Amino acid sequence: MSNYHADVLQADKLLGNLERWLDKAIAHAAQKKYDPAVLLLARLAPDMYPLRQQIQNACDGAKFLAARLSGKAAPKHADTDQSLDELRARIRSVREYLATFTPADFVGAETRVVPLGFLPGKAMLGADWVREMSLPNTYFHFCMAYAILRHNGVDVGKTDFIGSITLRDL
Amino acid sequence: MSNYHADVLQADKLLGNLERWLDKAIAHAAQKKYDPAVLLLARLAPDMYPLRQQIQNACDGAKFLAARLSGKAAPKHADTDQSLDELRARIRSVREYLATFTPADFVGAETRVVPLGFLPGKAMLGADWVREMSLPNTYFHFCMAYAILRHNGVDVGKTDFIGSITLRDL
Repeated sequence: MSNYHADVLQADKLLGNLERWLDKAIAHAAQKKYDPAVLLLARLAPDMYPLRQQIQNACDGAKFLAARLSGKAAPKHADTDQSLDELRARIRSVREYLATFTPADFVGAETRVVPLGFLPGKAMLGADWVREMSLPNTYFHFCMAYAILRHNGVDVGKTDFIGSITLRDL
Repeated sequence: MSNYHADVLQADKLLGNLERWLDKAIAHAAQKKYDPAVLLLARLAPDMYPLRQQIQNACDGAKFLAARLSGKAAPKHADTDQSLDELRARIRSVREYLATFTPADFVGAETRVVPLGFLPGKAMLGADWVREMSLPNTYFHFCMAYAILRHNGVDVGKTDFIGSITLRDL
């Protein structure tokens, strides 16, 4: 059960990392004298989501990770965020939501049945869902957000992607 | 303990997905009449690794996930792979290595001390290492490989990224 809470804490850390990538995006825009909102419409391919939706989907990935494994209803976000400030507010809102969870919320998460909205009548067990669907999908959107920023010259690096780690002496 | 073996199976699945992305890359090159090896040098930014190294690092991420959590020595790969055929052989070699593991290999993985090569004198516990370092880093390189292919017009999509999932009826 504490493993799933640890996954939620990891998702929260990724959202904190994302906030710092956006700080660097704003700094890059100021240095190069462009409107940072331009980045929100940047895409790696014309039929891929732009940065704005990658951020929205990363937020949703983190939110639903906690909600579905705990069997709670997730707060709604309407995907109407257009500006950097609105996207930052969404990230903060999801981080505040994640902070409400404790390890006890994930008792039984492993065998919880998670319905799949895109496959009516089908579901996954919590343990499979988190490993095969939720985490891969959530990492995908964080990575695409990072890749879009990096592709556009924003000074993010691998340590910005990984963020803080729990060290001990050898 | 079986959770860590399941993480290894998930990494193996991602390698299988990557093999199919490369099939699609070769098909795209044939259709557009270019040498698919061109893609191996493609990058999202001049100071990012090209596809070739993203594939090598994805392979290493999967290999070390199994090796370090089980306390075994990983097979060496010299990063001399230059061609698509050589990279495919490396993917197959890592998949064969991963297939040698069983859940019993991961007894005690949670508290196993994993030294960090890039931080002499420092280590992480297995449970922290897999969640905070190994999986994020491994997903990062799979995602960047995918993003480079997608950015260059190869017809990969989200279901190619996610791959097979363990379904049950609702």
